Amino acid sequence: MPTSFACEQIRLGVAHRIHLNNAGAALMPSPVVDGMVAYLQREATIGGYEASAESTARLQGVYDSIARLVGSKREEIALTENATLAWQRAFYSLRFGPGDRILISSAEFAANYVALLQVARRTGARVEVIPEDAYQVLDPEALERMIDKRVRLIAITWIPTNGGLVNPAEAVGRIARAHSVPYLLDACQAVGQIPVNVRALGCDMLTATGRKFLRGPRGTGFLYMRDDFLKDIEPAMIDLFGAPWVGPERYELRPDARRFETWEANYAARLGLGIAADYALSIGIERIEQRCRQLANELRAALGTVPGVLLHDLGERPASIVSFTVRGAGAREVMCKLARHKINVSVSPPASTPLDAARRGLPDIVRASPHYYNTIDEVHTLASAVRGTAA
Amino acid sequence: MPTSFACEQIRLGVAHRIHLNNAGAALMPSPVVDGMVAYLQREATIGGYEASAESTARLQGVYDSIARLVGSKREEIALTENATLAWQRAFYSLRFGPGDRILISSAEFAANYVALLQVARRTGARVEVIPEDAYQVLDPEALERMIDKRVRLIAITWIPTNGGLVNPAEAVGRIARAHSVPYLLDACQAVGQIPVNVRALGCDMLTATGRKFLRGPRGTGFLYMRDDFLKDIEPAMIDLFGAPWVGPERYELRPDARRFETWEANYAARLGLGIAADYALSIGIERIEQRCRQLANELRAALGTVPGVLLHDLGERPASIVSFTVRGAGAREVMCKLARHKINVSVSPPASTPLDAARRGLPDIVRASPHYYNTIDEVHTLASAVRGTAA
Repeated sequence: MPTSFACEQIRLGVAHRIHLNNAGAALMPSPVVDGMVAYLQREATIGGYEASAESTARLQGVYDSIARLVGSKREEIALTENATLAWQRAFYSLRFGPGDRILISSAEFAANYVALLQVARRTGARVEVIPEDAYQVLDPEALERMIDKRVRLIAITWIPTNGGLVNPAEAVGRIARAHSVPYLLDACQAVGQIPVNVRALGCDMLTATGRKFLRGPRGTGFLYMRDDFLKDIEPAMIDLFGAPWVGPERYELRPDARRFETWEANYAARLGLGIAADYALSIGIERIEQRCRQLANELRAALGTVPGVLLHDLGERPASIVSFTVRGAGAREVMCKLARHKINVSVSPPASTPLDAARRGLPDIVRASPHYYNTIDEVHTLASAVRGTAA
Repeated sequence: MPTSFACEQIRLGVAHRIHLNNAGAALMPSPVVDGMVAYLQREATIGGYEASAESTARLQGVYDSIARLVGSKREEIALTENATLAWQRAFYSLRFGPGDRILISSAEFAANYVALLQVARRTGARVEVIPEDAYQVLDPEALERMIDKRVRLIAITWIPTNGGLVNPAEAVGRIARAHSVPYLLDACQAVGQIPVNVRALGCDMLTATGRKFLRGPRGTGFLYMRDDFLKDIEPAMIDLFGAPWVGPERYELRPDARRFETWEANYAARLGLGIAADYALSIGIERIEQRCRQLANELRAALGTVPGVLLHDLGERPASIVSFTVRGAGAREVMCKLARHKINVSVSPPASTPLDAARRGLPDIVRASPHYYNTIDEVHTLASAVRGTAA
């Protein structure tokens, strides 16, 4: 367990790279990698089924770890192969008809948005965007005014893929609860970065990935679904794990959220996800949040002094995702120049957040996302390197 | 590359375990594990996005490896997180209406079967079982007689999860082609064990796993979909990778089979899958098949001499999956006793192949599945150990 962020920095060996792409995929801590490597080697030695059988308790414990991380019961967690699959398995299992209304945030991630379009086209449901307040944050009062009996789902992104925006997920939850409207929350960029508690959020469904701020492996994610809600939801797709065969022409859905899983899984990756969750909890999510905000604010301040740099972040208290453009240089060009300085950032194209990008007329933007193991020096190094790319 | 099966045996260190659970998950060869471990460590060092960027060519090459393995174009391959997901993504994307007929084999795996039941219930389609010949192998002549204009899909399992049965997948393909009926082939136990060529098979869709006879990692699978067929199939679920957003309220499906993928993937596992495919090809699938049949036949012969052992295999030329029961001992008891002798087998419950198990009145059965790296000695050791379990 790291006792200080500085010793984490040394352990990672990231002194050679400045990794500011944590909203893409953060660096896995060594217990995560070591745990996966040992498990893979065990599989190759004694067999894949045999390794999972001897590790049953640890593999079951992953559900407890994720439940602790989001404040749910373990029976409310399904492990998935990524956040999109978690979101899809929840969303596509809901039933819509002509004229039903689905309310979304303008910062919706394109993966969700195209799925919403497909279902709207298939069922005749309508997708409507919840207006923003003066800070361009989702406006709960505007949401409240939209609610009527035709609203069948509120599906929003808590922290979008770029722009630092933090939507008022709890306020949305209060409205969803008050009107008994199902509430699906995409928490991809939130989990591992800020405290997450599904009871406080009041959501029925929450989806997240392992690879971002949680520092878990790629190819992992999870779905939380509230127990009282899931008991009435038949998964859009089933197999013998989620819906065992029980008699002639009959299957029976599992009672827990794992009805959304398939039988086969990548157990090494699952173990890695559980270790990452425990690791984050041992550091303390509040502490992580505080450190992330400090670094992100420092980065915004530093970039603010660079001529030609335009920040595109939204909201009064933005998260640790800093988005900007540089006058006279395309975002990809900036990313490549920074890569030569061994600084990792990423690029968000308009197609990743189509509604928000169209509304704000955004081009490709550079995304820098510090995590707790980054340093003040590193964010200043980034700002200096960006200064060098401005024409 | 192994030059002989004996040296493979030594390399694996399986002298300590007799692994006869290859129909569950085979032992990964060291290049597969080493490749994954190196990739995971690289991700932890330079970042997940950055590692996939520098390995683009190798990751793209996985599609070529799988295409070579099944005789398709690379554009006809989608990589998935397991075989069930591959099968689901194909099957649930097909459209059915009331009275449509879906023809299946009696040996259908329960994962597919419950999905078939769900879709039948949802759409009013009917699921019908193709009769068998005197050897209890799917009878192509019976299939031919069933065909009419209401048949919308033939969905069969090539080599079932137990019983050694090899269904006449090519003969089924000729009938499917002659009548232009879509043909979905579950090749989970075939890939890596016997030669697979999608053109010769005449299938429109083929699904498989990495972890079984292919010796790839757990949590991997793939879908082949014929290019002329896939161009008219909209995936049941989409995201921004398979269906990029292209303009106001519009998305466009990718032209290739990857429209069935999601954006995020477990790249380490994908690389492992590609290495496993190359590894199998370098040994030669015909050679693997011959060796597997030799070991399985030897095992059947040896078990045939053990009093109280009843073989449950079907077909004239069974594959390398040997199923049996022992008088006076439950299958799980036999498995546990064998485990104490460091012999790995598995148990197939009736619920894994509901139709076949009901028809034959099968209890839990023991499944022993040799692979090319097993030895004649090992199958005799198994038979002797089984002799010890018979009451």
